[in-house]
Amino acid sequence: MQPFNIHILGCGSALPTKHHNPSAQIVEIRGKLFMIDCGEGTQAMVRRSRMNFSKLYAIFITHIHGDHVLGLIGMLSTFGLQGRTAPLHVYAPEAYGPLFKMELEMFCSTLDYEIIYHPVDTTKQAIIYEDRSLTVETIPLKHRMPCAGFLFREKQGLRHINPNALKAFEVPVSQVNNLRNGLDWTDPEGNVVANEKLTTPADPVRSYAYCSDTRYKPDIVPQIKNVTMIYHEATYCEDMKEKAEKYLHSTAREAALIAKDANVGTLLLGHYSQRYIDEQPLLDEAKEVFPNSFLTNEGKVFQVK
Amino acid sequence: MQPFNIHILGCGSALPTKHHNPSAQIVEIRGKLFMIDCGEGTQAMVRRSRMNFSKLYAIFITHIHGDHVLGLIGMLSTFGLQGRTAPLHVYAPEAYGPLFKMELEMFCSTLDYEIIYHPVDTTKQAIIYEDRSLTVETIPLKHRMPCAGFLFREKQGLRHINPNALKAFEVPVSQVNNLRNGLDWTDPEGNVVANEKLTTPADPVRSYAYCSDTRYKPDIVPQIKNVTMIYHEATYCEDMKEKAEKYLHSTAREAALIAKDANVGTLLLGHYSQRYIDEQPLLDEAKEVFPNSFLTNEGKVFQVK
Repeated sequence: MQPFNIHILGCGSALPTKHHNPSAQIVEIRGKLFMIDCGEGTQAMVRRSRMNFSKLYAIFITHIHGDHVLGLIGMLSTFGLQGRTAPLHVYAPEAYGPLFKMELEMFCSTLDYEIIYHPVDTTKQAIIYEDRSLTVETIPLKHRMPCAGFLFREKQGLRHINPNALKAFEVPVSQVNNLRNGLDWTDPEGNVVANEKLTTPADPVRSYAYCSDTRYKPDIVPQIKNVTMIYHEATYCEDMKEKAEKYLHSTAREAALIAKDANVGTLLLGHYSQRYIDEQPLLDEAKEVFPNSFLTNEGKVFQVK
Repeated sequence: MQPFNIHILGCGSALPTKHHNPSAQIVEIRGKLFMIDCGEGTQAMVRRSRMNFSKLYAIFITHIHGDHVLGLIGMLSTFGLQGRTAPLHVYAPEAYGPLFKMELEMFCSTLDYEIIYHPVDTTKQAIIYEDRSLTVETIPLKHRMPCAGFLFREKQGLRHINPNALKAFEVPVSQVNNLRNGLDWTDPEGNVVANEKLTTPADPVRSYAYCSDTRYKPDIVPQIKNVTMIYHEATYCEDMKEKAEKYLHSTAREAALIAKDANVGTLLLGHYSQRYIDEQPLLDEAKEVFPNSFLTNEGKVFQVK
């Protein structure tokens, strides 16, 4: 199966700590890299990583709080100094447009690559990126400013040829595309051979939803139903729910409720408040509701499967 | 003597490395802290430091390249989250004004303290800050964009009272101010007692010049003549002089020539190109011209004396 991995570059929240960087992740899928959020210092994590960032195709910013975007300009500038020439797409909330333009003029005017800004409407669910094998949709979230999560979803792939069966039924190579697309085969004598005899099923479609920052928002559940993996912010434990309500964040239990109700495969927790030196209580709380929960941490890689 | 220390938070250059952060220093002088430059990640160094940043009074930005300013907004925002209420002054080149305003509106609109922006004319030598004990002047530098260094200079302090002499000559306490200001004393019988008999000299005036980023610019020498300590950028060794000329930086030898010609006390080197894993060659080159040269490094503290 093609790789589909989530690399955690930062999973802290607004107040910096010694343990965590602010939000940033890489979604590695079928040879392309996509970044979600880019807090201050992300370029230092990029430098330490072994990924090939010339394969970074697009950056998706959820909202314009410093801990999600203040690493962007420095990183874009550094890519230029490192000789990048491939265009780079930046998807970010509409309100960022004027500031981003001014920042690019000030800090990135001499780059040898193109930066293409795509304003994102955070209020509606829409496909904002699509290629041969992938779509990315916005997930409207509820925060102190316009904010959207992102849902990465593989497109349905083709069925796999069974070479031995092709040989046995003497199917000509010219038929491979039809077979992979699910068509049956009719031999020169007019006998129909069912597709299932000649192929095995396509790989299951995998998907990853990134939901941060947000107040508990159960109306996202239909959109993320059955996703393979979800990252949901879990800034506080339930005993700090009042703060979660005030600052429009979620508790670990609420993150787990979303995961459970959406019947997802795996839940990743992050965006920890700086008050948790040890995040085990957040994990314990989530696991009570949704056992397949995990803590993210800088440098960790999660396989979407 | 009152403390006058230089704390190095970052001494790398534009391309990030594992060894160095981008430019940032703290000038600690008589209980106040001043920051010079604020590259990305400076707030992480602030967090690690043991200094009391509620005593940070002003930030001086030399020029608007990312490695000198991209840490500013995140740090200002964090100060707010940490409960700062004291006003903070930011001195930066005029051209930064519109962008800084927009950034503050986007990221710092809810702070409980005031940020006062002072546009700096980088083209002329002028006192831009003054308090009871200190002046700060701009040092016009030569870089790819408007850029000024900063000269911190103590004001001449008062002479020190010799308590035993006061007792011996029966000088009333009411005369202390006059004596500290250098006046002689005339006793009730009309005898003049020379000030030198009653006081010892004031502390010597100390000064610190920060010169980065700049092409070799010998015309700054008169302004920084006899300063106690100078930080001068030394991006390259002499064998890379062509690059220094192209990008308007200095070599270590050129930094040392400035130090020697200005007859300074101590030279600090920094703003190293990322190509130097070991900076010893930069130091060796500087010491050939000016023996009292030192390499800066993150976490190092230098006493201005």
